[in-house]
Amino acid sequence: MLTINSSRLLANLEELGQIGAAAAGGVSRPALSQADVAGRDWFKRRVLAAGLQFRADGAGNLSALLPAQHSEAKTVLAGSHLDTVPNGGRFDGALGVLCALEALQTIKEAGVKLPCHLEAISFTDEEGAVVSMLGSRALTGQLTPADLRDVRQPGALDAGLRRLKLTRADVLAAGRNPATLAGFVELHIEQGRRLESQQLDLGVVTAIVGIRSFWLHFTGQAGHAGTTPLAARADALRGAAAFVLAAQQLVQERHSPGVMNCGQIQVEPGSFNIIPARVRLALEFRHGTEAELEAMQADLLALAGTVAGQHGLEFSSEVVDACRAAAMDAALIGLVERTAAELGLTSTRLLSFAGHDSQTMSAITPTALFFVPSVNGISHNPAEFTHPKDVVNGANVLLHTLLQLAGRCSD
Amino acid sequence: MLTINSSRLLANLEELGQIGAAAAGGVSRPALSQADVAGRDWFKRRVLAAGLQFRADGAGNLSALLPAQHSEAKTVLAGSHLDTVPNGGRFDGALGVLCALEALQTIKEAGVKLPCHLEAISFTDEEGAVVSMLGSRALTGQLTPADLRDVRQPGALDAGLRRLKLTRADVLAAGRNPATLAGFVELHIEQGRRLESQQLDLGVVTAIVGIRSFWLHFTGQAGHAGTTPLAARADALRGAAAFVLAAQQLVQERHSPGVMNCGQIQVEPGSFNIIPARVRLALEFRHGTEAELEAMQADLLALAGTVAGQHGLEFSSEVVDACRAAAMDAALIGLVERTAAELGLTSTRLLSFAGHDSQTMSAITPTALFFVPSVNGISHNPAEFTHPKDVVNGANVLLHTLLQLAGRCSD
Repeated sequence: MLTINSSRLLANLEELGQIGAAAAGGVSRPALSQADVAGRDWFKRRVLAAGLQFRADGAGNLSALLPAQHSEAKTVLAGSHLDTVPNGGRFDGALGVLCALEALQTIKEAGVKLPCHLEAISFTDEEGAVVSMLGSRALTGQLTPADLRDVRQPGALDAGLRRLKLTRADVLAAGRNPATLAGFVELHIEQGRRLESQQLDLGVVTAIVGIRSFWLHFTGQAGHAGTTPLAARADALRGAAAFVLAAQQLVQERHSPGVMNCGQIQVEPGSFNIIPARVRLALEFRHGTEAELEAMQADLLALAGTVAGQHGLEFSSEVVDACRAAAMDAALIGLVERTAAELGLTSTRLLSFAGHDSQTMSAITPTALFFVPSVNGISHNPAEFTHPKDVVNGANVLLHTLLQLAGRCSD
Repeated sequence: MLTINSSRLLANLEELGQIGAAAAGGVSRPALSQADVAGRDWFKRRVLAAGLQFRADGAGNLSALLPAQHSEAKTVLAGSHLDTVPNGGRFDGALGVLCALEALQTIKEAGVKLPCHLEAISFTDEEGAVVSMLGSRALTGQLTPADLRDVRQPGALDAGLRRLKLTRADVLAAGRNPATLAGFVELHIEQGRRLESQQLDLGVVTAIVGIRSFWLHFTGQAGHAGTTPLAARADALRGAAAFVLAAQQLVQERHSPGVMNCGQIQVEPGSFNIIPARVRLALEFRHGTEAELEAMQADLLALAGTVAGQHGLEFSSEVVDACRAAAMDAALIGLVERTAAELGLTSTRLLSFAGHDSQTMSAITPTALFFVPSVNGISHNPAEFTHPKDVVNGANVLLHTLLQLAGRCSD
């Protein structure tokens, strides 16, 4: 059975990890930075050294290509991103790109002929240094001129694009025809402890969670913190506190594995000696399907209303943001699972609670996303680490998934 | 039995309420303002018209004097303050000053000879427009030069004193010899609903509560609000919320009538999608004696530590402020109660949860403080109101308390 060259793959990961590295161990290659450009140059050299074709599109996405015999064949994509958060780790993103490159190089060296083009891709700015998931959004045609106008620092976008010798027009013209694509497969580190704690080799993602966020407003009555008896108060903080506790219990009991967070709270008037009149509480929750999100929303807002009533408060809510859940392709989920099993690896299905380029790609082509364990679940941190055996396992599953997927292509 | 002139008293309250009045009904006579000066001028005219002596001390405290036959006699003081909060009411402070003035005028008109001087006093800036309780603190020798240097707006103090033709040196020299005083009695509105809800005529204060305040620090672990399972979180807001609820229950069950408040809360990092790592929670609590405050503090801080542990958090606390509880004089409490009973009025003992000049005065002379009901407990508000019958009841109790107290004086 064909296997990837593990020492070459691990050496590549090590070498890329030096680009943008700090003495203390962190890696900083924010998209469109000088370090990102250095990482891109390194990648291009590696692609060409592997005997693969190199391609860069208008959004700065970089690809290694292993063409099929017929140029009109469909393309199977695999990859992730080379950019990092500031002071991030060596595996988040890089793993998926280098394993895809290694898979293509292995297939090329083995002389396997496939009826589909294979493409290992690195998407621009997954982490959102300038525009979150710029590359995959541009490739899938989901990016509008307004998205580029409304970025926090328009100057940073233009300066960054100049560094890549690109323009906004290039970015907006980078869309690809879905009819030419036969699927996308992304390998990533878990960024959690589920695989590690269950001692599993692989996690196959069923969906990337949707996220909804609200401001919850609890309104009571300000009053003198001395002269107003405790039982006579309409204390907005009491109601908000009761909600924070009850909501976590509700989600654990009725919406697992969905999660929620209250990450900010603001009290008015906000004095030691005045009973809180108004509380604004940030609520965010995540789940794998729109139906589950809808049910969580109904339960959580009803709970907030009930708790407010119990504390003599008024309640209202305000939508802040909503990001739709993205289902991965059922056939590809099965394919990754079977491939893992054939390689003697254990796996489980799980939700991805963090965003990935796969959620963007799944809008235009059948997409699979699978995880290998990350030690202690740490990511976006210099301590991010995945054991070499898990890197190699992931790469071999990716290799054989791509072989299966590309082998089925009708051209 | 001697009684005060109720129509004159009510007319005085009405007339004073016009000074600093807004069209919408609120009264603004912050200490040392133009309106305060107008109120002071009006008071001086009233004192002189009543045939009483007028006196102003170095701290701007204004007095009506009804001298005893022997000039070396001790002095019985009664009064409160003429200043108001911005957009306040007509009764807070004014009631105590005008009832004391009315009592002296009544005694003078009745020709009663007493072995003590009687003095109806208005203290400067009880509400703290510039320096909280400036007048009573100066009179009792509790004010230091540093207290005047450290005020929020030193310019406002100097400009205000110039308006009264006084200097900082005058203020600091306004201390009186405690040996010359035979007691202080203050009548005030309740600023709460206890008397109203129990349909009682009078509340006799046993102590003005002490106040202690702390910042409570709950420290957990920031984390990704998606990828960290709910059960694995060390969410600082969850711990703080549990404390807010448990603390209120603890105080109601074990420290009543003591009260507490959590009036401010701050979360870090403070994002929708990050688990709260640190919470800073404002805790204030009040009770009638230092021993009770000590017990509350021990219970509340222990509770915070326990709750923090249950949520996987670290806990620490930071003292912000402490104001000692001030006990009223036991003999004077009994005297006010007997006087009320003799006038056919009902009364109860209670704590004062708001500060008053009585807490300052109690440090140097036996002090009594008693309340008449305020409708709906409203104060520091244009809607502040006390029924005329309660005003008159209070004034008559004050009159006979002063007659008793001054009648006992040995000169």
